[in-house]
Amino acid sequence: MRTWTRILGIDPGFRTTGYGIVDSNGQESRHVASGAIRATKADTPNGRLGIIFAEVAVLMEIHAPQELAVERVFVHRNADSALKLGQARAAAICACLTFDIPVFEYAAREVKQAIAGKGSAGKDQVEHMVKILLSYSDALQSDESDALGIALCHAHTRTVTRQYTEAMQ
Amino acid sequence: MRTWTRILGIDPGFRTTGYGIVDSNGQESRHVASGAIRATKADTPNGRLGIIFAEVAVLMEIHAPQELAVERVFVHRNADSALKLGQARAAAICACLTFDIPVFEYAAREVKQAIAGKGSAGKDQVEHMVKILLSYSDALQSDESDALGIALCHAHTRTVTRQYTEAMQ
Repeated sequence: MRTWTRILGIDPGFRTTGYGIVDSNGQESRHVASGAIRATKADTPNGRLGIIFAEVAVLMEIHAPQELAVERVFVHRNADSALKLGQARAAAICACLTFDIPVFEYAAREVKQAIAGKGSAGKDQVEHMVKILLSYSDALQSDESDALGIALCHAHTRTVTRQYTEAMQ
Repeated sequence: MRTWTRILGIDPGFRTTGYGIVDSNGQESRHVASGAIRATKADTPNGRLGIIFAEVAVLMEIHAPQELAVERVFVHRNADSALKLGQARAAAICACLTFDIPVFEYAAREVKQAIAGKGSAGKDQVEHMVKILLSYSDALQSDESDALGIALCHAHTRTVTRQYTEAMQ
């Protein structure tokens, strides 16, 4: 019998950070929770970091995911937004580090490839496939859908890696 | 009699993060500890974040500073290094957020102005003045000296602010 793993996917952003939690046994995945952490304009930059850090810590406490999957960011059009995005991303990761769970990174192209079969797939396609893979019919916000996609990408990839490792033994 | 406040100054960087801890009573400041947190090249990006986060948390536990002062970053020449710097900066700040101490930010120019009397002062001038202000004679690394400068800038600024506030009451 396959064991289930709870995965937290995070799509970091300075204004909105999407999160999606799924349980996966390597063959099927189930939706546990998803949503978006919003930092209002009134917050200071460090206040935003604090909100992301605290909210992700709450998710860790409530749902106790065993692994974190987060979008890898290579380049950015603008140095100032790259700095802000880097800070948001680190705040989310650090909140998970306090719970000592492993962190995995996936490039946006990898996520799209894993979910929609094409690295250049659009947001609508990813959302459509996320809903099918999770048998989820409610509306999803964009950041929420992306975060679930990252979690599902990891659910798929970790299975492939484990199968490969087992075959080599 | 003036009370003493313990201030942690941090100069974040992706490879090396400088830290400097000073006790200040508003008139004089004393060196408590300083150094640099190094993330070796072998570490993964998230491993580096983890090192900064964990090391700053250890500083918080050992020295129990009451306030954090960190360099504010506006723009950066390169989007990729801005992303990395943002992550290093957030990891250091988040480690302090878990201890619930207030965070203050200063631009590099403000620090130079406060320490060396000139916003365009060079690193050597800042280091020279940091040593004089702390009556500190040992050699200081560049990141260490900058971090102590940030802590001293806050020590000076917080006093001015408090005096101003007291005068208004």
